[in-house]
Amino acid sequence: MFARPPIVGRYTAEEVELATRNHGMPLEALRYDVTPAGLHYLLIHFDIPPSDESWSLGIGGLVERPFSLSLAELTSQDSLSIRVTLECAGNGRGQISPRYPSVPWLEEGVSTAEWTGVPLARLLERARLRDAVTEIVFHGADRGFDRGVEHDFARSLPLHEALREDVLVAHAMNGAPLPPQHGAPLRLVVPRWYGMASVKWLRAIEAIDHPFDGFQQAAAYHFRRVQGEKGEPCSLMRVNSLMAPPGSVDFYTRRRIVNAGSVQMSGRAWSGVAAVERVEFAVDRDWTDAVVAKPQAPHAWQSWQVEWKAKTGEHELACRATDAAGRVQPLQPVWDLSGFGNNAVQRIFVTVRG
Amino acid sequence: MFARPPIVGRYTAEEVELATRNHGMPLEALRYDVTPAGLHYLLIHFDIPPSDESWSLGIGGLVERPFSLSLAELTSQDSLSIRVTLECAGNGRGQISPRYPSVPWLEEGVSTAEWTGVPLARLLERARLRDAVTEIVFHGADRGFDRGVEHDFARSLPLHEALREDVLVAHAMNGAPLPPQHGAPLRLVVPRWYGMASVKWLRAIEAIDHPFDGFQQAAAYHFRRVQGEKGEPCSLMRVNSLMAPPGSVDFYTRRRIVNAGSVQMSGRAWSGVAAVERVEFAVDRDWTDAVVAKPQAPHAWQSWQVEWKAKTGEHELACRATDAAGRVQPLQPVWDLSGFGNNAVQRIFVTVRG
Repeated sequence: MFARPPIVGRYTAEEVELATRNHGMPLEALRYDVTPAGLHYLLIHFDIPPSDESWSLGIGGLVERPFSLSLAELTSQDSLSIRVTLECAGNGRGQISPRYPSVPWLEEGVSTAEWTGVPLARLLERARLRDAVTEIVFHGADRGFDRGVEHDFARSLPLHEALREDVLVAHAMNGAPLPPQHGAPLRLVVPRWYGMASVKWLRAIEAIDHPFDGFQQAAAYHFRRVQGEKGEPCSLMRVNSLMAPPGSVDFYTRRRIVNAGSVQMSGRAWSGVAAVERVEFAVDRDWTDAVVAKPQAPHAWQSWQVEWKAKTGEHELACRATDAAGRVQPLQPVWDLSGFGNNAVQRIFVTVRG
Repeated sequence: MFARPPIVGRYTAEEVELATRNHGMPLEALRYDVTPAGLHYLLIHFDIPPSDESWSLGIGGLVERPFSLSLAELTSQDSLSIRVTLECAGNGRGQISPRYPSVPWLEEGVSTAEWTGVPLARLLERARLRDAVTEIVFHGADRGFDRGVEHDFARSLPLHEALREDVLVAHAMNGAPLPPQHGAPLRLVVPRWYGMASVKWLRAIEAIDHPFDGFQQAAAYHFRRVQGEKGEPCSLMRVNSLMAPPGSVDFYTRRRIVNAGSVQMSGRAWSGVAAVERVEFAVDRDWTDAVVAKPQAPHAWQSWQVEWKAKTGEHELACRATDAAGRVQPLQPVWDLSGFGNNAVQRIFVTVRG
């Protein structure tokens, strides 16, 4: 497997192609509790696979009763709807230097949706897992190459995570059937984990008794400081926050222009580890506490707001969240070879006019 | 008004931010006659403005009976549904060198949707245009800066185009209310024209008796070869075509890998000027005719297909459309200062394995 050399400075045509195919959530969409479907961030590794009514989901491996479900059988079962904030593990990658050649997310790879589906635990119970099972593997229908290795997109969860009552095999998003780009007709949704765990275009579920060694599990999605080290697997989302940029925008530079006076600043904060307890807001690195709302749902981002008395001139705004586990966003990105888990504070540069 | 200096070589952070906020249509979505809503290409100049049920549309200027319509009044009228292919005037900009600093579209800024709304002509008839009227101006609710000029997004159409029976004030897309990013709750849809004419977040319609001089009409969206010249306004979409990339993809390079043997190639072709009459397909610059389907609707792209007998090795694929007006896509981009109207043939590089 060959490594891709890191990039310094301006962005490559490959990065732009990935940024154009996929997309982040425009930050003004932080205004919505639930992100409208077409605004939800997207990361599609290969091509969106075609699907039709004949789709079926197989459940097998180390189980007493392997079975397969048609789409109609799955959607006719009792379902659960949960509101979940998902963030790409590579969010913020494009702001680190040198950076890993991949999707150059700035900071907008996060969104919240209402997912409807069948609890995974119910399907596993019906299949009767054997005692030896330690992990559950999820196989997507999307297939391609990465670093010379051809593979289906597949990921596993440790058994105790797979049995959580809030892990869904989802068939609907925001009350409508899944759109193609979000995994139609079936996907996994794993609250609190970075997005790579929520396998799209779900084809097969497999119980195994050893650590899964698929490419997206063993090679990709690890925190590493040097090439070749085993590293630490990406799992729960780190504490993070964003603010909706205030005022008006310049088309090309995306610089913000704000009128002097009282400005209501607002945004969202989330953590896969624990609820967010505190959000701070800074003007020119002078920090003050914002008001943080209680969680609207156990796995959804929390809103926050604060008043800013904007004074004429150039200013830097920032926000920083702390969760109930005591984790706080760093002021500067923490180096990672592949650009994973960058939860450094967001900074917005604004011109305030009188 | 200051000009932005052209860019050579790798892409800027500003271009990446625009590519990440906005998005193209992933080319595998050429498989859909109608592009699913969240896959339809997007170009949002400023911020997506908020909207609610209190939205109203004003119709005024040089009319005998100015009036305003509530959203409920508009959506309760008899409506028309039409299938329309829209393409961004800047599609292909990112492939020209030197290039204009803006959204660095490669070739995926095109999509087809089913739009439902009220014919604009019916609203203009009710308002009773005065004899002096020569243009109709459309004002969006989105506001921001470009090249130092603060303005609402606004565009005009010549009167005869505005009175075409297929120009809609649309309130639905693919059978659902407009999503925020596509102009909720109301937008203009102008078939055959590049996308900038289809003003989103439509607030006001104004009849005037002189050439509209708004920024997006007079400064932006002109074909120009040198800075400062008046140029030719962008209007009808030039003849163009795309193919769905065959085989599997490598995640980062987006290089395609295809198995040797028979490969069914397919794609879409369109022109704002006339129906597409011919599509040619080339392997290593050796051209052959593809089979082109009749238009599925008067203003929607046409599908085409051809069999490719793929032989082991490295190959370059290309496609080229010709319309009934005799316009044909150029083999190389035609230089334009702002990167508008680049309808040069698409090229895909593939590795065929035995």
